Amino acid sequence: MRVAIGIEYAGNAFEGWQTQRHGRTVQDTLEIALRKIALEPVQLVCAGRTDTGVHATTQVAHFDTSARRPLEAWVRGVNSHLPASIGVLWAVEVDDDFHARFSAESRRYRYVLLNRRVRPALLGGRVGWTHGDLDVVAMREAASCLIGEHDFTSFRAAECQARSPVRLIHSVEVERRGDVVCFDFHANAFLHHMIRNLVGSLVYVGMGRKPVGWMSELLAARNRTIAAPTFAPDGLYLCGVEYPPRWPLPGGGRIIAAPQLLLP
Amino acid sequence: MRVAIGIEYAGNAFEGWQTQRHGRTVQDTLEIALRKIALEPVQLVCAGRTDTGVHATTQVAHFDTSARRPLEAWVRGVNSHLPASIGVLWAVEVDDDFHARFSAESRRYRYVLLNRRVRPALLGGRVGWTHGDLDVVAMREAASCLIGEHDFTSFRAAECQARSPVRLIHSVEVERRGDVVCFDFHANAFLHHMIRNLVGSLVYVGMGRKPVGWMSELLAARNRTIAAPTFAPDGLYLCGVEYPPRWPLPGGGRIIAAPQLLLP
Repeated sequence: MRVAIGIEYAGNAFEGWQTQRHGRTVQDTLEIALRKIALEPVQLVCAGRTDTGVHATTQVAHFDTSARRPLEAWVRGVNSHLPASIGVLWAVEVDDDFHARFSAESRRYRYVLLNRRVRPALLGGRVGWTHGDLDVVAMREAASCLIGEHDFTSFRAAECQARSPVRLIHSVEVERRGDVVCFDFHANAFLHHMIRNLVGSLVYVGMGRKPVGWMSELLAARNRTIAAPTFAPDGLYLCGVEYPPRWPLPGGGRIIAAPQLLLP
Repeated sequence: MRVAIGIEYAGNAFEGWQTQRHGRTVQDTLEIALRKIALEPVQLVCAGRTDTGVHATTQVAHFDTSARRPLEAWVRGVNSHLPASIGVLWAVEVDDDFHARFSAESRRYRYVLLNRRVRPALLGGRVGWTHGDLDVVAMREAASCLIGEHDFTSFRAAECQARSPVRLIHSVEVERRGDVVCFDFHANAFLHHMIRNLVGSLVYVGMGRKPVGWMSELLAARNRTIAAPTFAPDGLYLCGVEYPPRWPLPGGGRIIAAPQLLLP
């Protein structure tokens, strides 16, 4: 039997999603809790392998088990064995042809950037921070060149394991809400560090350190060494994964949960 | 010289505001950092002594010092000696007749309650939680009897040190935003545990365990033992303090920073 689950976590409590020998990852923590309910080892496959410090309002994963449990056991039962910073939101039974990673048609990430004079305290670890005034209109204009299918080599981590550097970006939105600037990305998939690298370069444009046209120059250059440094993971949230409607997933497969953040 | 400062903190990192022998409080943490800049002991007086686990988007405090420093030293200099969960937002010089507590004309608190089936993970420690469906209209109606000057004995902690149980509530608002219910309180001052006790009883009304008229019965009874239990501190934020306009405070003395929710 294959089970799909939705998961929420505060990334600053973990060393990323992907299992590690030291066990301090989201996957390891979840697999230990799932095993306590399944009474057998359980292996998870997720939609988007988040880095250390990156949060999820709605990660999606699947696992196979011979255990027969009421679906509620995979939610509340598992939650009772998890630390406070991670929780299962829902569980559904799916056919064996569902794959949390390969069936996903697109992912949504939001980068939340606090833009004020003093560093975050209440939202420490939950937002990125930059103190200089940011020109949101310039960043939005600079980001528009990213939409469509492009080779994102300039925004890809050296350790990236993807076969191809080509990704299809459906939309990029940059919006100010008081002291906070939100960057919303929707794409078929993302390369390793891609959003944090894009945000880093967009912030250079927003600060006036680079002109609006710089983003398309970076894109064309296909050279990681000329873009801005990778931005902090603190403000990054995986907040949507979309699947075709043929599995009984929440929202008909459009699983979206924008971060609810408490901002001063 | 008297200095007023604005402070933001995540309350779950501290055992309340008020200094304690063990030193794990907001006041102790701040006084140690201030001393490093002042090079002499510094004693703080705050506008609202928050409990263990209660947050502040904008606490206000004052201190006296013989140290002459640029105002920026009381902000960024102090911040460099503070842990990530607490930060100074601003500092201004004020006349000796300013008193962070006694000059304050009113305080604002918000209680943020996550109302969904599963417990919070991403916002663990930052929101209260209740899983049953809440009737916001009933809670709003029940809360309306609180407005005005009343004896709040029924909502006062046994340990409360205030001389009088009478407080003047200017407004109470109850609003749903998706999965979250916000309770906004504005009053001249609050008794110990008063908001958490009010929220606990309002939630009983919202769940249908008690009728709308129960709040005014509780108020009239002046008896703590009949109200609902004290609600968790996790969702409570001090988010405003108001002073007369005669000191050079931010916002002309109306210092308000309501926690905002970033919703889809």
